Parts: sequence; C-alpha cells; structure tokens
Amino acid sequence: MDCFLLKGNVLYSSSMEKIEVCPNSFLVCEDGICRGAFAELPDRYKAFPVYDYGDKLIIPGLTDLHIHAPQFAFRGMDMDLELMEWLQCCAFPEEIKYADISYAQKAYSIFAQTLRESATTRAVIFATVHQKATELLMELLENTGLITYVGKVCMDQNAPEGLREKSAEASAFDTIEWLNHVSGKYQRTRPILTPRFIPACSGKLLEELGKIRRAYDLPVQSHLSENPEEIELVQSLFPESLFYGDCYDHYNLFGSKPGTCFGGQTVMAHCVYSSGAEMELMKRNDVMAAHCPASNMNLSSGIAPVRKYLDMGIRVGLGSDVAGGQTESIFRAMTDAIQVSKMYWRLVDRNTKPLTFEEAFYMATAGGGQFFGRVGKFEEGYEFDALVLNDEKLPHPQELSPRQRLERFAYLGGDMTEIEAKYVAGREIRLH
Amino acid sequence: MDCFLLKGNVLYSSSMEKIEVCPNSFLVCEDGICRGAFAELPDRYKAFPVYDYGDKLIIPGLTDLHIHAPQFAFRGMDMDLELMEWLQCCAFPEEIKYADISYAQKAYSIFAQTLRESATTRAVIFATVHQKATELLMELLENTGLITYVGKVCMDQNAPEGLREKSAEASAFDTIEWLNHVSGKYQRTRPILTPRFIPACSGKLLEELGKIRRAYDLPVQSHLSENPEEIELVQSLFPESLFYGDCYDHYNLFGSKPGTCFGGQTVMAHCVYSSGAEMELMKRNDVMAAHCPASNMNLSSGIAPVRKYLDMGIRVGLGSDVAGGQTESIFRAMTDAIQVSKMYWRLVDRNTKPLTFEEAFYMATAGGGQFFGRVGKFEEGYEFDALVLNDEKLPHPQELSPRQRLERFAYLGGDMTEIEAKYVAGREIRLH
Repeated sequence: MDCFLLKGNVLYSSSMEKIEVCPNSFLVCEDGICRGAFAELPDRYKAFPVYDYGDKLIIPGLTDLHIHAPQFAFRGMDMDLELMEWLQCCAFPEEIKYADISYAQKAYSIFAQTLRESATTRAVIFATVHQKATELLMELLENTGLITYVGKVCMDQNAPEGLREKSAEASAFDTIEWLNHVSGKYQRTRPILTPRFIPACSGKLLEELGKIRRAYDLPVQSHLSENPEEIELVQSLFPESLFYGDCYDHYNLFGSKPGTCFGGQTVMAHCVYSSGAEMELMKRNDVMAAHCPASNMNLSSGIAPVRKYLDMGIRVGLGSDVAGGQTESIFRAMTDAIQVSKMYWRLVDRNTKPLTFEEAFYMATAGGGQFFGRVGKFEEGYEFDALVLNDEKLPHPQELSPRQRLERFAYLGGDMTEIEAKYVAGREIRLH
Repeated sequence: MDCFLLKGNVLYSSSMEKIEVCPNSFLVCEDGICRGAFAELPDRYKAFPVYDYGDKLIIPGLTDLHIHAPQFAFRGMDMDLELMEWLQCCAFPEEIKYADISYAQKAYSIFAQTLRESATTRAVIFATVHQKATELLMELLENTGLITYVGKVCMDQNAPEGLREKSAEASAFDTIEWLNHVSGKYQRTRPILTPRFIPACSGKLLEELGKIRRAYDLPVQSHLSENPEEIELVQSLFPESLFYGDCYDHYNLFGSKPGTCFGGQTVMAHCVYSSGAEMELMKRNDVMAAHCPASNMNLSSGIAPVRKYLDMGIRVGLGSDVAGGQTESIFRAMTDAIQVSKMYWRLVDRNTKPLTFEEAFYMATAGGGQFFGRVGKFEEGYEFDALVLNDEKLPHPQELSPRQRLERFAYLGGDMTEIEAKYVAGREIRLH
C-alpha cells in the first residue's frame, strides 16, 4: 500500500538556512512514509511504480497553522478596519450564521473544497462555537484527505448574542459533548481545544478548559498579543496576569511546563507584541508561534519580529489567518513574511535582519509541520506530504535553476491550477 | 466606428473618496470616448450594439505608472537583496542581454503578451539603453493595443560595461536618433525621456536631456528618493543640489515650472523619502508620483507616505515596478498600497491614516490615468478604457454587493484568466 516514486526536481529544507535541491530525482514513498530523494534509485525501491512529473518541481506540503473556516466566506472584503472593530462588524456577524446548518453546509463546502485544491496539506483550524456545524466541518475536511486539527470555539463573554455561550459551564459541557462525539470518528481530522482569545473567555471558562485539556490530552490553539487594544483589554480583564501568555499559562493552556507533558502541543497565532518574558515562557513551555503576516497588515496590527523568535529557538510556522488574511495561500504567507520582515528591519529595528527565502520556505514546510509530528521534510521517516508544482504559466527567456523557479513560484504562483498533484501521508488528493 | 454599449455592474471612482456603483447598467462608448453609465439607456444610444456581460463587474482600465520591461524576465527571483546591490547583481546583468536582439525578441514578447492579458490598459515603461531593442519593444507593445509610454534608458556612469553609454554626448545622440526613428511611427506607443536615475547620469548628460526635452516636447520618467543609500550617493555626486528632486529640476527634468509648459508630464517612481521641500517642488511643478509598494518592500526601501502626497494635492498613481515588484498586477499594487499604509500608520506615524480601498482604487484608475489625459473614469468625455472582471472562481455562500465583489477581486483575483474582456480607447484587446 502507498508505495511509489515521484520523479522530478525535488526541493526541501534540510535546515532553516538550507534548501536541498535534487534535480531530476526520485522521491520515495513507502507505506505513507518518505524514504528520501535519490538521483540514483537504490535497488530496494526499483519495483515501486513511478509517477514521472518531468521537469516539474516537487516540494513538501505546506502547513497552515492558523485559519478560521467560517471567515472564509468574507475573505478579501471589509478590509479597512482594525481588529476589535473588525471582530464586531465582520467576523462575529458572519460566525453567528453557522447556527444554521444549511448555511454552514454551503459555506464549509466551499472552504473545504478550496483548501483541498490549495497548496495546504495540513491545517490547524478554528470553527465556531456551534457543535453541529463544527462536526459538519470536520466531516467535510475528512473527505478532502488533508490532515487537520479543528476546534469548536469557546467564548462566554465579550461576544454578541448568538456567539456568546450561555456560561462557562455550558461552554465546557458542549465542548465535552463535542469531544465525545468526534472521538475516534475520523482518521485525519482531530479535535483541538480552542479558547477564542482571552478577552472572550471568563476565568471560569479558562479553568474548565484547562481541566478538559488535562482529561482529554488535547492540543491547544488560540490568539496571542496581536493588537495593542486587545492586549490592554486582557490586562484590564486579568490584572493579576503578568502578561497575555501568562494568563493562558495560569490555566494550563500554554504549552507544557518543563517536566509535564499532558495535552499535546500549543500554537498561538500572531505574537506581534510578545514581551521578552512572554517569549521566554513560550520557549520554556515549547509553545509554537503561527506567524500571520497578511492578517497583521490588513488589521493594522503590526509586524511580528519573527527573527527574534527564531533566534531564541521558538518554533514558528505560518498561518493564513483567513479572513484577517485575505487568502488561504501559504505561498503568499511565505512572501508576505519576507516582505514585512524587511519593513520591520527598515522601520523598527536595524538589528533584526530580514527573513530570507530559505527561512520562509522552512517555516511553511518543516517549521509548521512540526505541529503534526515528523512532517514537512523529505528525509527518511517523515510522513509523505508532497506538492507537484506546475510553473509553465510563468514563461521566461533564460535558463532557470529549480531554486529560482521555486522562489518565483512562491512570489507569483498564486493560482490553484498550478498545483499539479498533492499527496498527504502518502495518499494522493483528488484536486479538480 | 467604436460605438457600442457594455452591460453589467459598472463601478468607477468619481473622486478619491467615492466609488460609484451602477448595478446592471449600460456603459456607453462612442468613437472611443465614454458617454457615461446609465441604468436607463438614453434614446440616442439605443441603436448601439450591446455586449452583455450579465452580472459581471465592469471597471475602468488600470494604469501602471512604473514598470521595467527588461526586468520582467527575472520577476519574483533574487528577492533577498537591497536596491544598490540588487541593481549590480540582478538588474544590470539582465539588462545587458538586451544588446542581443534575439534575446530581446524572446523576452519582450513574453512581457508584451503578459501585459496584454493583464488588467493594465496603460503603462509607463522603462526599456534599456539599447536603441534597437527599445524599438522592438515599442513595436510589440503597439501590437498589443495597449497605450504606453516607452523610454530608451539613458545612463553614462555608475553602470557596468555594456550598459554604460560611452559619453553624455553619445547617450544624447542615440536618444535623438531613437526619437527621430520612432516619431510618428506608432499610434499607441509614445516615447518618454528616461534618465535612469541621478546616480547613473553625469551632469553633462542631464543637461543634454534637458535640452532634448525642450526641443522634442517630451514627458519624463525617472526614480526619486527610493532608498537611503541611493539618496546619499546623489548628495555626494551633486553636492550643490538641495535635494534629489532639485537635481532633476536644475536640468529641467522635473515637471513644469509654473508659467512654463514645455515637455508634457513628469512621473517619478517611489518617493519614499522625499523631504517637505521635495514634495513642495513636486507640487509646484506638478510632478506625479508612482507609488510602488511591492518594490519598496522587496528591496527593503521603506514605505512611501502616500497619504501626505494626497493631502498636499500631489497626483499619485500606482506602479508595479517589475522586477523590484514581483508582479505586473495593479490589483496587487492596490492592496499592497493599503497594507503598507497601515504599517506606516502603525509603525511610523499615527497621524498618517491608512489608505482606504476607495483611495487605492482611485489611484489605480483615475489617479494614474491622469498621466494619459482624461483616462480612468467612466465620465462623459473620458477615453474608453474598461475591464470586465469574472469573479466566478471565487465562490461564496452569501449575497455580495458589487462593491464587496470589487474589493474581493482586488485582494484575490490575481489570475489573468479572470479578466474577461478589456477595452482601450474604445478598442477591444484580444486576450488569449
């Protein structure tokens, strides 16, 4: 089962600094696991069927560490607002609609179909507070063949009627019911604990979620230090917290304290304004950061100093953050990350040097992939997630190397029709 | 000739602040001139043939005020460098190749074909120093049906062998020869005087170009205050100049001094670091600014404070600046302009409020269109440049207004296949 070879120009990050280029090579998949890329195929793989993609580029699948499925409907619209106003005027009113399962069916089908056709192979996804719609989303995603984490959102304050759960207990109860419902139901779609963000959660709710996390051994996703106004609100709601992340940590929702290891991983989106102390805690508890540059521009939040996280050894991946970000494209997130890092260097701190293409590619593949285990490289033992890229729509008069073509594809190849084939854990995804 | 009606959802900027929306309306073209958009068609136009585009969006064509044709070949590559290094390592070595007319044929054909299929209807274009290749480019562009200005580049210092013209006199001589050659040759392709930028031009060359401008009554394009290192170089080369723009002005290459009016218009790309005095002079001499946000990010230049230019009444349009910018898409330039303006507000000056979608759309259409006369609006007497947009590839579960669809298209509709039809001065452009 699932034993085959892909042939083409293979590229992947062996480290943050280095893109390995294997021109005209064989990429081996054995039972869903990568066995490496070879210019000369070892004898033991010679019986495997070959899918020959000629001169095309083959790269690891991309991981989206932060995306809101219900916001996909209004991507690219109402972009002239800042975070807190945008939540009230755009995001929350749209999310309320997912109480209606027929609307959810229509909207989530578009989302799942788009994600299937995109360059994303793995994603960590916010749904809404609605249990039924969240289960529907999980089912639709399961059918795509992608591997995802999906969270029923928890929020019991600072949200409009229709999204605000009745109480901390009610939110916890629904979350447990949802977890019991989906437990073992899917092969590729897993639940993740999802407090929306501190302002929308009472202390009581956070306490309940901490308990659920421990009982169900769950990973966690949420938002962290995105916008100055939001951070002030957190401070005023939880004056006893030292900083935003400390508040999650107080309730055992912020990675794993050294020596403990319940609850799987934690990913926090944005981290634009994390203090030194917050970054220290992320490092200590091994909290991953989801860098969402487009969203941080669109909502006027600012620029996350990703270089500093990388230098500290904090693990960073990329997030599209649709619909704060306008597009699900993680290629776009790669180049946005580079561009905003240049503006951070120029406008904020000349000691924080811009991200390179190598680093952005690493974050999109191996960086974010870590949330799912051994994912995002073409090394022995990694799960076999691969994209075949068709860059024929980008004509050129001169010779180009595979490395140049990859960079060009990231900057220009936004269109899904250019994803020629897609494999997740060794299984080919039906694209069109 | 050229009398027809387009039917669809018509949108255009009547002012910087306002997008007029005419749902399900008739747009009238009479002899290449727009007669307005009408929900109820006046009797006098009822005999015109109707091209019915159903529910699609119809907007004015987009103007690209700054693009380098020879750099199109390496768009989206080698993006990890700053301006002066990038010129030496990427731009100049590529431009040298255009001495070879067969390479130019191959490369410029790709450029012209892409521009034809893009959302751009008018463009102001840099070629290289090579006369033959520049004339070839003009011929290829003429065949697209677009209306463009094309400049043979002038540079006699600080450039490598093969791009550096032998002397100021030789550069002037070749420029005059080129002007005589192309004079009256094309209907839609016009020459524009093109000193590369101050660092590449001796005082003697600038003096010669000032004379040519006066003699031939030519518009001017160049670069202005893009990067701190470049600005320092200008200062050291022309210590007597008060500022970068003053140096152009000294040689009569910077708009028209009040009371004079030789030489058509001037457009200066970038204007990231223009001082108050430079902006005053731009205003006084009516120099237009080409805002190129992607390029300013990619080359780590900075963010041009467009709001300040608009507030002063300086005319601003958008430029793709390929290959400093990675794409020819002026839709992308619109949304990039909004995004970087939000970062300028957040990181540099909280008194400089972000650009709105309305303002970005205005700059892309009516703003940049001014360089070509009455271009970029659907008002009586404007030249008839129109795009029909097909946004069917962006599915959605809810009702959307034409205004929402337009914003979404700008943020997400990068692909050329989504330009359904394109008209320039009343003539339909063959797209595929």
